[in-house]
Amino acid sequence: MEIKVIRKVLDVNNIMAEQNRKMFAEKEVFVLNVMSSPGSGKTTILEKTLTYLKPEIKSAVIVGDICTTNDANRLAKTGVSVVQINTDKFGGDCHLAAHVVARAAENIDLDSVDLLIVENVGNLVCPAEFDIGEDARVVVLSVTEGEDKPVKYPLMFRVCDAALLNKTDLLPYLDYDKEETLKNISQIHPGMPVFEISAKTKDGFSPWIEWLKRNVRQKIN
Amino acid sequence: MEIKVIRKVLDVNNIMAEQNRKMFAEKEVFVLNVMSSPGSGKTTILEKTLTYLKPEIKSAVIVGDICTTNDANRLAKTGVSVVQINTDKFGGDCHLAAHVVARAAENIDLDSVDLLIVENVGNLVCPAEFDIGEDARVVVLSVTEGEDKPVKYPLMFRVCDAALLNKTDLLPYLDYDKEETLKNISQIHPGMPVFEISAKTKDGFSPWIEWLKRNVRQKIN
Repeated sequence: MEIKVIRKVLDVNNIMAEQNRKMFAEKEVFVLNVMSSPGSGKTTILEKTLTYLKPEIKSAVIVGDICTTNDANRLAKTGVSVVQINTDKFGGDCHLAAHVVARAAENIDLDSVDLLIVENVGNLVCPAEFDIGEDARVVVLSVTEGEDKPVKYPLMFRVCDAALLNKTDLLPYLDYDKEETLKNISQIHPGMPVFEISAKTKDGFSPWIEWLKRNVRQKIN
Repeated sequence: MEIKVIRKVLDVNNIMAEQNRKMFAEKEVFVLNVMSSPGSGKTTILEKTLTYLKPEIKSAVIVGDICTTNDANRLAKTGVSVVQINTDKFGGDCHLAAHVVARAAENIDLDSVDLLIVENVGNLVCPAEFDIGEDARVVVLSVTEGEDKPVKYPLMFRVCDAALLNKTDLLPYLDYDKEETLKNISQIHPGMPVFEISAKTKDGFSPWIEWLKRNVRQKIN
């Protein structure tokens, strides 16, 4: 029963996502859906990323959390438009659904934006099932989370277009087999680019920023 | 619509959870539901915990993952009975539902067990909504996940009876305000015990093991 019910919710979501995709195409806005476990460093990565993209790429952010406006407050300091969604108004949802993103996007001047980043609710499972009308999906995985997450949460790694392996500054203090992680990612999604970064030290950001800029330019030019 | 649908699923689950609770009471088994984000260290904590509980407390484990039997393989090495649930057979569920736990429990000789530990799917959101018929709930939070998780995922911290703050061995290498985390936990769930541990170094395990033994004894004696 449960499975059938969830299928219906996903069908409705897919229709709304296609409406979003059409709207974003008309506005020539590239939409990036950023997903991960809680605490893997999405917000810190976005703080740094938004700064690197300026002034070339004009960005805005939609931040999804069940509660609090902590992340929006942090991201607003970068000077871009930020809209916080609190899903507790939508039943405490563990993901951003397409209709929720559509409502949040009404608060952003899409005509003056090249890139809309959606920071999803911290969750490696459910957000992977909900298309929001994005152009690309990125999963953040921190090195403190262990090597086997790609094989334990395969849908997330399958639907994403790139992975960010964050907190590499902590590698000297962990029993962590980075090659094993890369092998696991490649098993689930062969050929997907993986960018090794430290949002704390800004190490490794160049290839990631270049990848993102290239993808944005392909759509808006 | 979505919210109404989810309510119905939860109502059915609550009925099944009460059936589980009655069955576990008849068998005099204490059931602990362990929840957290992916990669916060649940399995490593349980490896150590199961060893500390022997021979006084006879344990068994049900492990929930979407895919893989990695965690079950690791826990089986401690010598206790382990049943792995892969929720991909249940639609890739992001949580363990009561009926799934009931089916897994059929594979455990409950007459010879004092404590049944359920390691839930890695997710700080959905598992908090699904009663599985447990006696106590514990949330694991690692210090690498930042200070604000309790306020961003409040339901999880509200429904739990204790929190384990893991990976304290990494504190010297992080910009982390432990007092802020404890304040946030206490704001969401005043008085809830918080055990600061390192599953890697086994630091801080005694108070946690004592708390767990005391709770198990209260039920089985």
